[in-house]
Amino acid sequence: MTSELNTDAELELVDRWWQAANYLSVGQIYLRSNPLLREPLGAGNTKSRLLGHWGTTPGLNFVYAHLNRVIRRDSQSMLFIAGPGHGGPAVVANAWLEGTYSEIYSNVGDDEEGMAELFRQFSYPGGIPSHAAPETPGSISEGGELGYSLAHAYGSVFDNPDLITVVVIGDGEAETGPLAASWHSHNFLDPVHDGAVLPVLHLNGYKIANPTILARMPESQLEQLLRGYGHEPHFVTVGHPDETAAAHRDFAAVLDDCLNEIRDIQSVRRSGAAGQDAGDAPAARWPVIVLRSPKGWTGPRAVDGLQVEGTWRSHQVPLSEVRINPEHLAQLGEWLESYRPGELFDDAGRLRPDVAANAPAGDLRMSSTPYANGGVLLRDLRLPAYRDHAVEVARPGVERVSAMITLGSWLRDVISRNPETFRLFGPDETASNRLQDVYAVTDKVWQYRIEEVDEHLARAGRVMEVLSEHLCQGWLEGYLLTGRHGVFSCYEAFIHIVDSMFNQHAKWLKVHRRLAWRRPVASLNYLLSSHVWQQDHNGFSHQDPGFIDHAVNKKAEVIRVYLPPDANTLLSVMEHCLASRDYVNIVVSGKQPSPTWLGPAEAAHHCRRGLGIWEFAGSEVPGEEPDVVLACAGDVPTVETVAAAELLKAGVPGLKIRVVNVVDLMRLQDASEHPHGLTSRDFDGIFTADKPIIFAYHGYPSLIHRLAYRRTNQDGLHVRGYKEEGTTTTAFDMAMLNGIDRFQLAIDAIDRVPGLAEKHSLLRQTLQDSRISAHNQTRDHGEDSKEISGWTLGRN
Amino acid sequence: MTSELNTDAELELVDRWWQAANYLSVGQIYLRSNPLLREPLGAGNTKSRLLGHWGTTPGLNFVYAHLNRVIRRDSQSMLFIAGPGHGGPAVVANAWLEGTYSEIYSNVGDDEEGMAELFRQFSYPGGIPSHAAPETPGSISEGGELGYSLAHAYGSVFDNPDLITVVVIGDGEAETGPLAASWHSHNFLDPVHDGAVLPVLHLNGYKIANPTILARMPESQLEQLLRGYGHEPHFVTVGHPDETAAAHRDFAAVLDDCLNEIRDIQSVRRSGAAGQDAGDAPAARWPVIVLRSPKGWTGPRAVDGLQVEGTWRSHQVPLSEVRINPEHLAQLGEWLESYRPGELFDDAGRLRPDVAANAPAGDLRMSSTPYANGGVLLRDLRLPAYRDHAVEVARPGVERVSAMITLGSWLRDVISRNPETFRLFGPDETASNRLQDVYAVTDKVWQYRIEEVDEHLARAGRVMEVLSEHLCQGWLEGYLLTGRHGVFSCYEAFIHIVDSMFNQHAKWLKVHRRLAWRRPVASLNYLLSSHVWQQDHNGFSHQDPGFIDHAVNKKAEVIRVYLPPDANTLLSVMEHCLASRDYVNIVVSGKQPSPTWLGPAEAAHHCRRGLGIWEFAGSEVPGEEPDVVLACAGDVPTVETVAAAELLKAGVPGLKIRVVNVVDLMRLQDASEHPHGLTSRDFDGIFTADKPIIFAYHGYPSLIHRLAYRRTNQDGLHVRGYKEEGTTTTAFDMAMLNGIDRFQLAIDAIDRVPGLAEKHSLLRQTLQDSRISAHNQTRDHGEDSKEISGWTLGRN
Repeated sequence: MTSELNTDAELELVDRWWQAANYLSVGQIYLRSNPLLREPLGAGNTKSRLLGHWGTTPGLNFVYAHLNRVIRRDSQSMLFIAGPGHGGPAVVANAWLEGTYSEIYSNVGDDEEGMAELFRQFSYPGGIPSHAAPETPGSISEGGELGYSLAHAYGSVFDNPDLITVVVIGDGEAETGPLAASWHSHNFLDPVHDGAVLPVLHLNGYKIANPTILARMPESQLEQLLRGYGHEPHFVTVGHPDETAAAHRDFAAVLDDCLNEIRDIQSVRRSGAAGQDAGDAPAARWPVIVLRSPKGWTGPRAVDGLQVEGTWRSHQVPLSEVRINPEHLAQLGEWLESYRPGELFDDAGRLRPDVAANAPAGDLRMSSTPYANGGVLLRDLRLPAYRDHAVEVARPGVERVSAMITLGSWLRDVISRNPETFRLFGPDETASNRLQDVYAVTDKVWQYRIEEVDEHLARAGRVMEVLSEHLCQGWLEGYLLTGRHGVFSCYEAFIHIVDSMFNQHAKWLKVHRRLAWRRPVASLNYLLSSHVWQQDHNGFSHQDPGFIDHAVNKKAEVIRVYLPPDANTLLSVMEHCLASRDYVNIVVSGKQPSPTWLGPAEAAHHCRRGLGIWEFAGSEVPGEEPDVVLACAGDVPTVETVAAAELLKAGVPGLKIRVVNVVDLMRLQDASEHPHGLTSRDFDGIFTADKPIIFAYHGYPSLIHRLAYRRTNQDGLHVRGYKEEGTTTTAFDMAMLNGIDRFQLAIDAIDRVPGLAEKHSLLRQTLQDSRISAHNQTRDHGEDSKEISGWTLGRN
Repeated sequence: MTSELNTDAELELVDRWWQAANYLSVGQIYLRSNPLLREPLGAGNTKSRLLGHWGTTPGLNFVYAHLNRVIRRDSQSMLFIAGPGHGGPAVVANAWLEGTYSEIYSNVGDDEEGMAELFRQFSYPGGIPSHAAPETPGSISEGGELGYSLAHAYGSVFDNPDLITVVVIGDGEAETGPLAASWHSHNFLDPVHDGAVLPVLHLNGYKIANPTILARMPESQLEQLLRGYGHEPHFVTVGHPDETAAAHRDFAAVLDDCLNEIRDIQSVRRSGAAGQDAGDAPAARWPVIVLRSPKGWTGPRAVDGLQVEGTWRSHQVPLSEVRINPEHLAQLGEWLESYRPGELFDDAGRLRPDVAANAPAGDLRMSSTPYANGGVLLRDLRLPAYRDHAVEVARPGVERVSAMITLGSWLRDVISRNPETFRLFGPDETASNRLQDVYAVTDKVWQYRIEEVDEHLARAGRVMEVLSEHLCQGWLEGYLLTGRHGVFSCYEAFIHIVDSMFNQHAKWLKVHRRLAWRRPVASLNYLLSSHVWQQDHNGFSHQDPGFIDHAVNKKAEVIRVYLPPDANTLLSVMEHCLASRDYVNIVVSGKQPSPTWLGPAEAAHHCRRGLGIWEFAGSEVPGEEPDVVLACAGDVPTVETVAAAELLKAGVPGLKIRVVNVVDLMRLQDASEHPHGLTSRDFDGIFTADKPIIFAYHGYPSLIHRLAYRRTNQDGLHVRGYKEEGTTTTAFDMAMLNGIDRFQLAIDAIDRVPGLAEKHSLLRQTLQDSRISAHNQTRDHGEDSKEISGWTLGRN
């Protein structure tokens, strides 16, 4: 296929497409009218606030134009990811040239009027962002926050053997940690069952106001670096900005070489010739292109006597005073005319057919590829029956089961039933989080040497483990947005490492949901274990339940938070999450053996309701209001709450205690604020309008107040939770130091039910003494902490 | 100096130290009594919960022992950073061997009883963590969350020309993004004025349950990678675990070579021989050591028939059943005896003098270096007079000034007055955030090629710019904890990238403050600009004011949040922050020209109080309660609030409006919850006990409710803030879409002051109309948004 000569005609076609894309990019940044320069360019034709960024754009257009050549030639499915910041004008321009833009946005037609609207809307109030965004056809990677493009690219090609994702990496974003780590991703890509990533490291030399590290290091060093990452680098260097013909020839030749290398790797591995399962087969050395081109290439060479093209001065708008400086305006006119728009667009403003010929057909257009609108490709998971994995619960609180182990057996079946559309991601914590049952049916992916002693390591597998939360998140985002399913299992405290990536994904989903042409994708599922209350050997650095707080700042329509109290509820919640669409689901569960409360059917019912009264744990009298509500959310708080109820039942006969367990945290919000929110009447029916509520919560107490803000009984709400106390100590001591232990909860109830403290001062004192003695016991005999942690509960 | 032979005697000494450290490490993990094995080891001598991690420990001890040799020989100041997770036993063991531990913690003496306590406390309830932590003498880097060790190391040596920081990097943590990016840090290290970092990449091959990328790639590739990072790699490979003598010889020789290389670079650069300011001088190629040693080296070779030493099975406790399995117990005994404790410790349990001889003297001991207790070295900044930079304010709200530009001029003088103890860190955003005045007196540090077109780039300078928030944060943490001062300037939305690093630093400070021997260090100052309300060209991805929410989950004693409304208040706040100790200060300020409200003296007074009534903006009658309180926090909300007051004054004559501006956000909390909190009486005096409060807040509204939780008038509190609306649009439209615009605030007041809505329905309608028309205007004529944004205010 690739033996075809890169004829001059082919490269001429690529060049003209490039000119057209550049013209449209400049137009987007500068023009509000007169899009085809039919009249002499006037200051009034320009936007008065120039908010675009030119610097990276011509390079992106250059790569895009060349990719179209090989897509057409080879009918190769490709996905394009624009890593550099402010790459919006380029990807939008190409989508318009390919016709996709007008197909999707009928108000932006493919003619002169459409071009005028294309220009006007860019970085304009109510218009489109200057970064690749959900609004951008063909995009799966938000270009605003930098560093995730390469990880997204890998996520997109896992289990897509026919896809090649080309990711342009800006030399600015290449300085970020996540991008730097992403270079190693090929160790987790199986050439047989996955597609390929072709990174184009675009060195234009500068970021906002500084040179870049990769552009300024000696080229020999850069070559070592890329080889050290395991890649085979191919350099294309634009010597002089005017030497575009040479640039086209060089890039076309290198691109062909790279595609040949990719296909060679794939054909060797896919034919099994290299002994793909042999531990000593060297990992594939995938190609990477290094494109050195001037920043702001083809833009004004100098402005006001200062060099602009090829420097950081072209980062934003090279001509900043077109409205007030006639020289700038004249230069803009020359710049635009330099692309000879009259030869690119016809009288109606449409792209001339002899330029449009560079566009691939239909869904091979990168702006129209279904891979970038993953919902189109998404198929439901075949979920195993929840009941087959649920544990029997003869009596609540007696048996101890690790909820995560139970879930692991279900996930094992999820994997075996969905061998090509589901993956489990984790930072070296899958087994630590007790999901090791999945290894009965799959392995962890690894392409470097595999040794005898290694377990569950293979060239192909469903489990992705790397000690980088950023990579787990980035890969999973790319995997989901191209139409597949997954779970990210992580220590609770360290999920904060990806706070900002979560932000961008949640924001992506918010916008995506409002775009009719974007089809729903699978939810991003966080499974957070090894949580704050079970960090006895790790201590303070591993204690942080604040990711939930962080997440609920995002749009309610996108965010779901679940705190299943035991094994069956965890199963039920995960079944729901894996079937859901367009959400971020956060599920928190401990991994240690912990009491089971609800049998299979009750658990499913409880989770469907999201919260409920646990009559078995309380002491209510049917038809009467309780004296106190003991509420809980989270597995450890649930244990302490039920134990507190036991203490109270024993100590205060006749006290009407209601125990409420909350699985779906957003039920606490008002129905007007969250789709899962309870109405005021329902809330009051459960929590009462005026009785004291002692709420033991898994995380920071303020979140419960925030969610229950302005509930009728908010003054009666007293919340206990994590308050940054405790470090290296037992699980029970952690609960005690933060005041969510059973004794404290019982004392809280006594203090808040009118008249109780006076009448039961002896009981209160006994509880206080027991509390201190349990504390001392756990401190002095740390090795017995498991016993203490199980105090009373599970004994009978 | 280094010409001295590494005599066998010297290496024997190092080896015995290593044995002693290993012995103490195993003891910490396993023993609760019988520390010197004076009696036969019984199950009862062991801890029943074994929570330590052996795998990485012997390698850390090995490096530490060797460093002591060269420190003694050369009287070289060194700082030791243990990057690998769970390195606690090693650093604690060495600190005890050096005597520092017992000097600091008198309950852990230097004898047998002390050793027993040393063992007992490790990973024990109320004891010490298994990671390097604030409690660990000689540590500046929390070892719990991985990835920051190398950045911390660089931060420690900036402006410390005599210091060499040796950082052991685990091959697990090396997979993280922040660590991967950190390898490029040498481009920001000036060999003349800074010290040196010697990284020891410790390849023990495995993380928790997987091999590591760097250990498994071919060695030739790893060598390319490290050369590609700009380093000169030196490999030390332990062939067989028993070949310890060869390992000592090899490591000692390589260490000497590396120190020679470091000193060669320094002497050449410091003598000026290489033409240090010439743009074409190649960047220094600093050495790095790659130490391949078996995971769990010197531990049990096999357990229960499975290989342990040299595999992931030695990650935690190689012998997990010592209490119930006699074979395990016997193996533990053999293992401990293999270090021949009788030859290391005397009858009293003290380290024998012939082993102790490997310890350097006094503060040269790495466990005792003042560099690791930076408060000892900390000196106050010489702060320039605030008044010299303050702007005059003839009339509030008339002049427009960029607060950040004003601050830049003050920071310029901070830099010129403190040329060796203050640095400004930012991810390529110093100029974008308008602090460019600093370049009048300093430059950005850069060691690669410097070109003609570059501005403010030099080999040495006070500004650290790299497109990695992780590096900025990591460098600054290292710089602060070694006793210096700094500011991290960042786009507000993207500071979330370091949420988790912030967590760890805030947790570090909480513990550090409770340790009497740790002296106060300079606060970590975040200066957040380019904030949510001024993202007209970046849009949705750049809009997130939630870092404040994230931060206030941490201990109140550590966290301060300031929202100065204008230039002078920003100056005053920053002056306060730069003089403070042991806090994390978060300061949010816009960079666009914005109204000035308070003159120099009033601003200082206002900031000292933290909040105050702005009589000039309201319409109160002295001695009478207002009808409504319009409160605000943040620069944009302040503009809108004052404008709302203007609208109300014009529309509702006689309405008594109080305008309250809040600079110090924590004033809103109760005095019992935060040191800056107002008492209930003071709060009610300002906000009234029962009048409507319309609060326009910079960030997510829930935070204000959270802080003002249970204030008398919390039911009267109505908060407007960011609710994730708006994307690419004007600043005014952003305010409107999120409901904090002047019209909405005035309408809110009308709706909440009893009787007003009925009486002034026409005004209400007019405000509603104006709101919509301003919205349409800003949408249709985006270029005029600056005008609209300044609507009414600043006109008169």
